[in-house]
Amino acid sequence: MFDKLETYLEANKARFEEELIDFLKIASISTDSDFATEVRKGARWVHDQFTQLGLTSEIVETEGHPIVYAESPPVVGAPTVLVYGHYDVQPTDPLEEWESPPFEPVRKNGNIVARGATDDKGQMLTHIKSTEAWIQTIGKLPIQLKFVIEGEEESGSENLRPFLEARKERLAADIAVISDSSQFSATQPAITYGLRGLAYFELLLTGPNRDLHSGTFGGAITNPINTLTKMLAALGDSAGRVQIPGFYDEVLPLSNKERRQFADLAFDEQAFKKQLGVKGLSGEEGYSTLERRWARPTFDINGIWGGYQGKGAKTVLPAKAGAKFSFRLVPNQQGDRIAQRLEQFLKTLLPSGIQMELVNHGHGNSVVVPLENRFMAAAADAIEQGFGKPPVYIREGGSIPVVSDLTEILAIDTLLLGWGRDDDNTHSPNEKFNLADFHKGIKSSLYLWHEIAQKSAASI
Amino acid sequence: MFDKLETYLEANKARFEEELIDFLKIASISTDSDFATEVRKGARWVHDQFTQLGLTSEIVETEGHPIVYAESPPVVGAPTVLVYGHYDVQPTDPLEEWESPPFEPVRKNGNIVARGATDDKGQMLTHIKSTEAWIQTIGKLPIQLKFVIEGEEESGSENLRPFLEARKERLAADIAVISDSSQFSATQPAITYGLRGLAYFELLLTGPNRDLHSGTFGGAITNPINTLTKMLAALGDSAGRVQIPGFYDEVLPLSNKERRQFADLAFDEQAFKKQLGVKGLSGEEGYSTLERRWARPTFDINGIWGGYQGKGAKTVLPAKAGAKFSFRLVPNQQGDRIAQRLEQFLKTLLPSGIQMELVNHGHGNSVVVPLENRFMAAAADAIEQGFGKPPVYIREGGSIPVVSDLTEILAIDTLLLGWGRDDDNTHSPNEKFNLADFHKGIKSSLYLWHEIAQKSAASI
Repeated sequence: MFDKLETYLEANKARFEEELIDFLKIASISTDSDFATEVRKGARWVHDQFTQLGLTSEIVETEGHPIVYAESPPVVGAPTVLVYGHYDVQPTDPLEEWESPPFEPVRKNGNIVARGATDDKGQMLTHIKSTEAWIQTIGKLPIQLKFVIEGEEESGSENLRPFLEARKERLAADIAVISDSSQFSATQPAITYGLRGLAYFELLLTGPNRDLHSGTFGGAITNPINTLTKMLAALGDSAGRVQIPGFYDEVLPLSNKERRQFADLAFDEQAFKKQLGVKGLSGEEGYSTLERRWARPTFDINGIWGGYQGKGAKTVLPAKAGAKFSFRLVPNQQGDRIAQRLEQFLKTLLPSGIQMELVNHGHGNSVVVPLENRFMAAAADAIEQGFGKPPVYIREGGSIPVVSDLTEILAIDTLLLGWGRDDDNTHSPNEKFNLADFHKGIKSSLYLWHEIAQKSAASI
Repeated sequence: MFDKLETYLEANKARFEEELIDFLKIASISTDSDFATEVRKGARWVHDQFTQLGLTSEIVETEGHPIVYAESPPVVGAPTVLVYGHYDVQPTDPLEEWESPPFEPVRKNGNIVARGATDDKGQMLTHIKSTEAWIQTIGKLPIQLKFVIEGEEESGSENLRPFLEARKERLAADIAVISDSSQFSATQPAITYGLRGLAYFELLLTGPNRDLHSGTFGGAITNPINTLTKMLAALGDSAGRVQIPGFYDEVLPLSNKERRQFADLAFDEQAFKKQLGVKGLSGEEGYSTLERRWARPTFDINGIWGGYQGKGAKTVLPAKAGAKFSFRLVPNQQGDRIAQRLEQFLKTLLPSGIQMELVNHGHGNSVVVPLENRFMAAAADAIEQGFGKPPVYIREGGSIPVVSDLTEILAIDTLLLGWGRDDDNTHSPNEKFNLADFHKGIKSSLYLWHEIAQKSAASI
């Protein structure tokens, strides 16, 4: 059976690439309403892929861009897998930095260069092509697949949660699969089993009722910028450890097993520093760089403003100042509890003469799929087949809101199987996707449907 | 003699006001080149005033707007007084907040409302009108007067120092007089005998070579905004006391006499807070609000920026952040020593992974005229004649660069005799000058020339 499947992949390689190029020509920029027609063209393209395979497919209208939903027939005794992906792409600015037009895909050094190549058209397509291989070769899939391919991932996914909630029963599945991230390195595939959460705030301080002259009033009137720097500085120590009382109370310590796994990864700290142009790294004491990035909470100020930002000198004692800042959260921190503790702490830091407003920009909790999850081994075996090497288990410092949505609404875990690379220029000019990775991804996906069916059968 | 002088003032009150109105119609905004013709008209108007009095007067060209220089004949055995003022005015924006057009002076509640009314056309004119009274009534002045009336005070006075240096001998005088500030209150005239100095800096921090994702990198990469808040917070304690080692080393403590004088002033702290819309004041412990504003050094952040300042949330770990900040200086602090100590201290606070650039925007040292200065009593007597009440001795928290220029270049002290009021809307819409203060100022000036001649004679 696998001979036939692999032969099919080999025979259709060139066509798969041509189809990807075709898909990448669609300028489906979801955040810019000038591109609405192109976004719809993207939805139609994905829908056509599914219908050509004989899958039930539907373009579901939302208040924004449509979601493409497709499913294959149920397979008795086998699990159901929900594949999430997105057909929309990031804007292209700065356009002048692109070496070739973003929607005119070109082949270069084994890559395909175009906006959306890795994020997420190329990666998402691997699961459609693997499905095609099963259907065209064997006539059916070993499991049931449900595809949710949205068109607003790059513009806030506002209509995804309502869709998931409205179709909860229809979307029922045993596990979700998302390919929208990266391998550990160009030569080391990975499974991402953890994401950090996020709690994002904005602090607005007001002092006097108007901008004042710093000579006439300086020394007696509390300066909102001085206060802001004091309050923000108090939120973390110089090593980056958060100083909000109770902040670490619920933090689940990293297991020794995980710490060993992280330590075993061939992470090149010198190359990392060089790539970012910094002479030194910093962070919470007692933790490695990977631990700090993947599995420890953080405090980062994302923006700050106040007073005079122009050229030269202006002796103003400003009326207002503000900042945006956020905490990355880890298991088992809860965003709402962090928000309460933060507010309490900030109030104790507020001096006389300053008023504060704390805006909560929302939060998402962290997600960790237990390494013991029954589908994790299936994914590892499939990736070994596709990439010729077993994956390592990694975490990611950022947040992917859909993953916690799937957990909360559909009560399922997600396998994050990234086929991309760190240097794929996601969200940047000259986005690319390695074509070898594209084919390895298709092959891994092809084996994944089989392994999930097998692992499940074994566990019954 | 004083009967004749006072009768002259009384008889010409209406004409003096009409001349002021005439002067205020000239839109001499020095900072905006569109108004260059109006600025020159202002210079010509002042020049004409002097020539009509028979004074030697000259419109001195500079690289910018001209300076009007005039002088009366020397008086043997009597001192020479240099009067400084300016005929240029601030811009008028926001224009929509003016209740009447800024260059169409109107009378309102005993005031004249127009741009430049108090700053400095109205105040400066008092010294020309008092001179007129002496010349038209007595035929001559009791002292020699030298007038330096510039046209770039509101745009940086760039050509003033070169002028003072080039004409050093010609400008030789015993004392300078400037009326470009305020009384202590509407019912309490004052002599300002001290000004704070200023040292102004800009700190620019650079972390990674580009903006990073705060999820992927947060916790391991030093965030330049976090660092900026830490470094700035370390410069002062929560009570506003500067933490730079050695910062206070040269500070001359306030004398008990001065502290008593400040304490005796009827400063209404409740009204001050209400006017500024703040619930509380703050500042260096052990000092009163007036002491903090007038005679203690400060640290104020004047501007700050970095990262994302737009709406909503952006999870950026920015590459750069910066701030502008300044210290008000008191006797005997030296701006250049403060700059050295600041730089040394900031270097000790700089973490690995961040690079800093410290820009020095220049400094001016504080100025204090000894209360024992021989002309101080003359000014006090003159003000008592003009305002019917002896003045109080006050200091001002801001800096007036020309005062230190006069000290450095001409080696003379300055009498700061402000006829304005705190609520005159200097630099703001609806600038005004009280007409009663205008006439009291003329009368004070008239007596000042006499008192200076007397005090000098007495001291010989």
